[in-house]
Amino acid sequence: MRKFQIVTLFPEMFTGVFGNSMMWKAQKDGYVELSTINLREFGLGPRRTVDDTPYGGGDGMLLMVEPLWRAVEQAKENDPTAKVVIMTPRGMRWKQALAQEYSEQDHGYIFICGRYEGYDERIMALVDQELSVGDYVLTGGELPAMTIIDSIVRLIPGVLGGENSAAIESFSDGETLEFPQYTRPEEWRGMKVPEVLLSGHHDNIATWRAVHSRKAD
Amino acid sequence: MRKFQIVTLFPEMFTGVFGNSMMWKAQKDGYVELSTINLREFGLGPRRTVDDTPYGGGDGMLLMVEPLWRAVEQAKENDPTAKVVIMTPRGMRWKQALAQEYSEQDHGYIFICGRYEGYDERIMALVDQELSVGDYVLTGGELPAMTIIDSIVRLIPGVLGGENSAAIESFSDGETLEFPQYTRPEEWRGMKVPEVLLSGHHDNIATWRAVHSRKAD
Repeated sequence: MRKFQIVTLFPEMFTGVFGNSMMWKAQKDGYVELSTINLREFGLGPRRTVDDTPYGGGDGMLLMVEPLWRAVEQAKENDPTAKVVIMTPRGMRWKQALAQEYSEQDHGYIFICGRYEGYDERIMALVDQELSVGDYVLTGGELPAMTIIDSIVRLIPGVLGGENSAAIESFSDGETLEFPQYTRPEEWRGMKVPEVLLSGHHDNIATWRAVHSRKAD
Repeated sequence: MRKFQIVTLFPEMFTGVFGNSMMWKAQKDGYVELSTINLREFGLGPRRTVDDTPYGGGDGMLLMVEPLWRAVEQAKENDPTAKVVIMTPRGMRWKQALAQEYSEQDHGYIFICGRYEGYDERIMALVDQELSVGDYVLTGGELPAMTIIDSIVRLIPGVLGGENSAAIESFSDGETLEFPQYTRPEEWRGMKVPEVLLSGHHDNIATWRAVHSRKAD
């Protein structure tokens, strides 16, 4: 069973996301194990401090290397062959081909959720891959970690079951080809389903869909 | 107070994310109101059905237009000037400049979380903007909605308070300029903080940081 462990200051953020929908079902069906490691437990001193000011000056606080390091060490004890990834703006851009690649590995992953004020660079000695989900700034690595894990787990064979949804996704061949779709009723607020889709003519339907396909931005 | 309403089949996914860290504090301090609308409550018939098979054939189920429409109508009753956005692979790519723009508006937003098997195209008559967070397929629009909302809310003046973190973010000028940072201790597992950062020479520190800056992928 593939393990995904997340080192985070906010483990409660993951409860709802891991406890519903596809990710909940993938755990229940035994495909993956999703767990969090609370970085606070590795904090230093009576206040379990995890951050400090940067050497050389600057705004904001950095995550100290020691608590992060010890948290990752514990994650590696749980899963010695796991690879370590960290979410950072300078990381490799996440995309569907990477999700496919990650879904095909037989080892687990450890996600380090930084806060974007930053972390002590020395943690990088433990990191196998830096990843970025896009050109926007987020408060922490938690939402990127959830996003990356969702995109991987749904591609693990069996997870989506008979629905076969992963196979038909338009991104799988590297680009989006999405066409407008309609379901019941035939008319809603004066808007009708295009007649060709009701015709049963498979060739005409295929042509209509090709013409109306739109690529991703 | 800015309202962000999310139409979703999985409102519990949002509990942990809206209840922790920056997004929790932004609500507590009165800057934003984050709420979910359960699409299931607008389902049809005794089983509150929300999806059906596509006209013209195809795998997967589509979200029907009527429950979505009625859920958005309720959201608009709560907040008549709100704009409606939907997450879809063909949407405009989310980026920091858009987060900035959205953070400066005085109206609210209604997020429709599709499932990526799709939705009846006619819902687009209510949609002001289609958005995409990246070139990867996710199980639903929930994680993209959380991501977009996080990136907007943290830019609302006052939310990050004295930390002033939003202002120093490297994406703000359109590109990433991240340099390695270090905090205590000076040595960890044989790895030392670069001496220049301990020197107190502001010019030398600035030069070192410029040289070691890395752009986003």
